[in-house]
Order: sequence, then structure tokens, then C-alpha cells
Amino acid sequence: MRLDHVGIAVKDAGAAGAVFQRLFGLPLALERTVPDQGVKVVKLSSGESFCEFLEPTGPSTPVGKFLAKGGGPLHHVCFAVPDIKAALADVKAKGARLIDEAPRIGAAGLPIAFVHPDSCAGVLVEFVEKP
Amino acid sequence: MRLDHVGIAVKDAGAAGAVFQRLFGLPLALERTVPDQGVKVVKLSSGESFCEFLEPTGPSTPVGKFLAKGGGPLHHVCFAVPDIKAALADVKAKGARLIDEAPRIGAAGLPIAFVHPDSCAGVLVEFVEKP
Repeated sequence: MRLDHVGIAVKDAGAAGAVFQRLFGLPLALERTVPDQGVKVVKLSSGESFCEFLEPTGPSTPVGKFLAKGGGPLHHVCFAVPDIKAALADVKAKGARLIDEAPRIGAAGLPIAFVHPDSCAGVLVEFVEKP
Repeated sequence: MRLDHVGIAVKDAGAAGAVFQRLFGLPLALERTVPDQGVKVVKLSSGESFCEFLEPTGPSTPVGKFLAKGGGPLHHVCFAVPDIKAALADVKAKGARLIDEAPRIGAAGLPIAFVHPDSCAGVLVEFVEKP
């Protein structure tokens, strides 16, 4: 099975999608309200996968209830970048707050760095350098 | 930027990884404890991306604090499958609880279905049929 997308519950899918378009250059793939699922969907492309922002249309929808209880166990998303120092400089220049000003070595032996969730619609974002 | 992996905070990375190996057939890519990050990592392959289970080595680690506060805004992961009815039957036969016994049409016009987080280490899992 191939990872197709990550769903991210937010109060404002348009605003969150705009942040990820601006910071990470992810192009808009789909924007649609699905009344019977109780969500507005803003979907951005990321390689062969997607980041899908889900805005509840009301508090009693599944995503509305998820947000009300404070979230779930998914922890972060990671984007592969060819040059991690350039990627960090780029998002910093766009106003993002970095957790790691310089890359460090991650569990797989590759350079990694984190961007603060306060800059990324509440999502902890990691970069990994994969040339 | 290409989506590389999704990080999933859990109390027991080995157990959670075993669930995803068994239910979804994701092969083990990496298993390692990273003391300076305070995590045990169990990473499974999913196409060109990964599902990365993160078990805190203690309550005062970043992942330990994340779990203690009840989680974050990431909502679900979705796997692309060639035959969604077969995929649902397969995980049901393996004991998983289905939210959708039959596929329905998702926001992008493709058949989708959800598997209950109680069966998937606390993670809401979606299938999308992409032949």
C-alpha cells in the first residue's frame, strides 16, 4: 500500500492551505465542500502524495468532534528536500519559526530539521535531505 | 516538496508497527532507538513514503509531552489500493473493525472507506481506490 495523503483537521482549510502553499510551495490540487461528510477540503500536491486540510462544516461533524477533543496521535509530516539548508533558509525568509536553525542527523543517518507548528497551521513539519 | 513520511506518536512503537505490518502489509524499514531525540523509531515502507511510529523513551521527551497533552491536528492517513473492496475484506478478515463496510465516493470522486482507529494503533486509516 502506498501512502496517498495525510488528512489534517483545521479550523480554516483555506488559511491552512495558503500557509502550506506559501511556505512549502505545494500546489493546490482540489478545493471542495463535501456536505455529507461535513467537511471543506483543501488538497495540496506533494510529490505523488497530498496534504489534505479538513475544515468541519459544523461542531457535530466527525472532524468538528475531533478538533473539539484536541486531536489525535499523528505527530508530524516530513517533506523530502534536495538541499535542507536552502529549504530552511527559504521558509525562514518567508517568516517561519524554525525549531532547528541548522540541520542535525536523524534516525536514518540523514540531515533533518523541524519547523515550528506555530508557523505551519498547527502542524509540526520536518525536512529530510534526500538528494 | 515530496511527502516523505508521517510521524505517529504511540506508547509502544513495536506493537503499533506490528499492527500496520499485519493489517496493511507494510514492510519494516527501520527500527532504532535515538537517545538524544528521546524516541524509539519503528519505520514501515509505504510506496515511496513511510509510516514512522515514535515511542517516547520518557515522559519529558518531546513525543512524551505530545502524548500527554492528547495529540495534535493531524487527522488520518490514507493508503491508495488497487481494489478497495478486496482491501476492506482483507483487513476485516484480519480482525479490523471497519467504519465503512462498503466503499463510498470521496471528495475527489473516487471510492473511499475508513478503518476504525481502535484497530489501527489509534490512527484513523482511509483507503482510496486508485487502479
